[in-house]
Amino acid sequence: MRNFSLSLIFLWIFSSSIGYAQTGSSEIKEDFKPSSKNQPGKEYPQVNSQGYARFRVEAPQADSVRVSLGLGGRGGTKLTKNEEGVWTGTTEGPMDEGFHYYHLTIDGGVFNDPGAMNYYGSTRWESGIEIPAHDQDFYALKQVPHGNVQQILFPSPSTNTSRRAFVYTPPGYSKESSERYPVLYLQHGWGEDETAWSNQGHANLIMDNLIAEGKIEPFLIVMTYGMTNEIKFGGLRDFKVDAFQTVLVDELVPYVDANFRTKADREHRAMAGLSMGGMETHSITLNKPDVFSRYALLSGGIYTPEELKASSKPELIFISAGSKENPDRVKNAVSALKEAGFNAVSYVSEGTAHEFQTWRRSLYTLAPILFSDK
Amino acid sequence: MRNFSLSLIFLWIFSSSIGYAQTGSSEIKEDFKPSSKNQPGKEYPQVNSQGYARFRVEAPQADSVRVSLGLGGRGGTKLTKNEEGVWTGTTEGPMDEGFHYYHLTIDGGVFNDPGAMNYYGSTRWESGIEIPAHDQDFYALKQVPHGNVQQILFPSPSTNTSRRAFVYTPPGYSKESSERYPVLYLQHGWGEDETAWSNQGHANLIMDNLIAEGKIEPFLIVMTYGMTNEIKFGGLRDFKVDAFQTVLVDELVPYVDANFRTKADREHRAMAGLSMGGMETHSITLNKPDVFSRYALLSGGIYTPEELKASSKPELIFISAGSKENPDRVKNAVSALKEAGFNAVSYVSEGTAHEFQTWRRSLYTLAPILFSDK
Repeated sequence: MRNFSLSLIFLWIFSSSIGYAQTGSSEIKEDFKPSSKNQPGKEYPQVNSQGYARFRVEAPQADSVRVSLGLGGRGGTKLTKNEEGVWTGTTEGPMDEGFHYYHLTIDGGVFNDPGAMNYYGSTRWESGIEIPAHDQDFYALKQVPHGNVQQILFPSPSTNTSRRAFVYTPPGYSKESSERYPVLYLQHGWGEDETAWSNQGHANLIMDNLIAEGKIEPFLIVMTYGMTNEIKFGGLRDFKVDAFQTVLVDELVPYVDANFRTKADREHRAMAGLSMGGMETHSITLNKPDVFSRYALLSGGIYTPEELKASSKPELIFISAGSKENPDRVKNAVSALKEAGFNAVSYVSEGTAHEFQTWRRSLYTLAPILFSDK
Repeated sequence: MRNFSLSLIFLWIFSSSIGYAQTGSSEIKEDFKPSSKNQPGKEYPQVNSQGYARFRVEAPQADSVRVSLGLGGRGGTKLTKNEEGVWTGTTEGPMDEGFHYYHLTIDGGVFNDPGAMNYYGSTRWESGIEIPAHDQDFYALKQVPHGNVQQILFPSPSTNTSRRAFVYTPPGYSKESSERYPVLYLQHGWGEDETAWSNQGHANLIMDNLIAEGKIEPFLIVMTYGMTNEIKFGGLRDFKVDAFQTVLVDELVPYVDANFRTKADREHRAMAGLSMGGMETHSITLNKPDVFSRYALLSGGIYTPEELKASSKPELIFISAGSKENPDRVKNAVSALKEAGFNAVSYVSEGTAHEFQTWRRSLYTLAPILFSDK
């Protein structure tokens, strides 16, 4: 196995705080609406046009209700109880655009907000809230032809079970029967699972919209669970990619090539991942340059010219991060790769941190160029 | 629209209580294990070999924590706090085999158990727990060829949006490209959604296992959201099937026939539903006998010979319920249908009530005979 500076990447990933928009103090506009990530019919949580979030939780006999979202990680937002026993509160300031995980702390215990839908993050099903973004159109549900997200259960002898993955197939895939497609293997981050990229990332809608606008040639996206060896928080320093690499390269890739109409060669196979999924992408692409030819790290480290020169030459390197992470590291890494003769592209998501809005935008930017030379 | 005795069905469905196994008093065996429906890595809730459930919730400053599961609906199970601030408790008696929805009441507020996965029921994402059943093998995840569960987004002009459905396609569906399949349209119950039949019903695993054992000819299953007109509890008396019938018959069926390799005729199209989904099945099959030829009501009412004689003759009628519901009503209805010359089959799930174990077993019993004459 190839070594790389895990502890540096670990620090880089986790030192960037969850982002809150910085604005001057101003009045809070009373145009709050239910979050688009609420359970059907639920009025709260709500968000306003400035990005403030407002919460409402019924727990009449509780002594304390806190929301984990708030300014700068300073303990979140404390709710206050009114005379009807209902707890309410608004974030101290506006939050970054896009999706945020959160939870409630009620009398010292961690629970979800009964108004919000749940998303797997931090190794638990968390509550989710959506701050409408100025560019939300690119992942909106529109009346365009839609591809499918297929749950597959593939045999995994190395883990002695059938494992789950999701496969995005573009509109029309099931209608015609001869066209073959390139494939992107797309990984979630630490504490997330194979549901993340379609549930909170809207990867399928991003693809549907790009295809409807004629901006890309369709490809398949395969998403599976990358925490094969049960990494827990803090254990990332001990991360070994071997177990997951076996599942991905020796079990999932052959299954997908046998069961879907893929262009089953290195030229038409890409791997990308966010955060910890970027670490996995980095290791596996360098270990298996005969399997993948296009690599993308989304808030998940960099490649150096040295480690790439020791491997086969990739067709494309894509490295991205939010502007509130470490954008200079991304840009500098891509400059160095270009100088060394690699086809490398950087992308920085403006005004976002180590969160899904950065990764939605990264996928939207990556997809049109990923297989464009093919 | 055809009329039928809605209030009778309403009473029948909701008067049967959620079931608890009745046993003589005995010692509780200390062989508790984490429920198979727990979030990854979570030790609680646990179940033992007798069907008792044990809960453990951290909320050190709470004054009261209750679990909605307990004997005979008598307020559920009260947890007690130990010196470390952890709330624990065990159900007063053993519970029925199979899947149960539940939630916590903490200081007067309703929340989910952070240890359990969430399932959409009662118009909210509820916690779920699984009491291992003696016959759990038929819906177990085995190392057999697996079909896919495809999320589709189909255009719905009548509701002015793209609507979601899930389509089960059998193993090998995507490999070969000419075989066509019959289709079962399968509906969830009140307060559930299109995720229910695969998440808590394991419809895909039931099919995979039946196919692997050579017990059935494969068919597709289509599952979509049936509460189109936003029925809330108590509003079921005012239930009108028109809006959903339009979505199902005029929008979803043509989309499925255009995008999947179906046998697109009445002979090869079935509709089934559980509870409220049975009410919908009853109405829609009688309104549209040219669309469906095989009807199944799972804990969801009956057909009378009179109403069927006024319609086209179905190929098969299947009516089921749990033995703790009203099994005589099911058997009597099927006797009357047989006497009148209809091909009718009854099924009673032993020892279960108005819950998913009844419906898993109903599907397992229905699937081999559904299209067996074709």
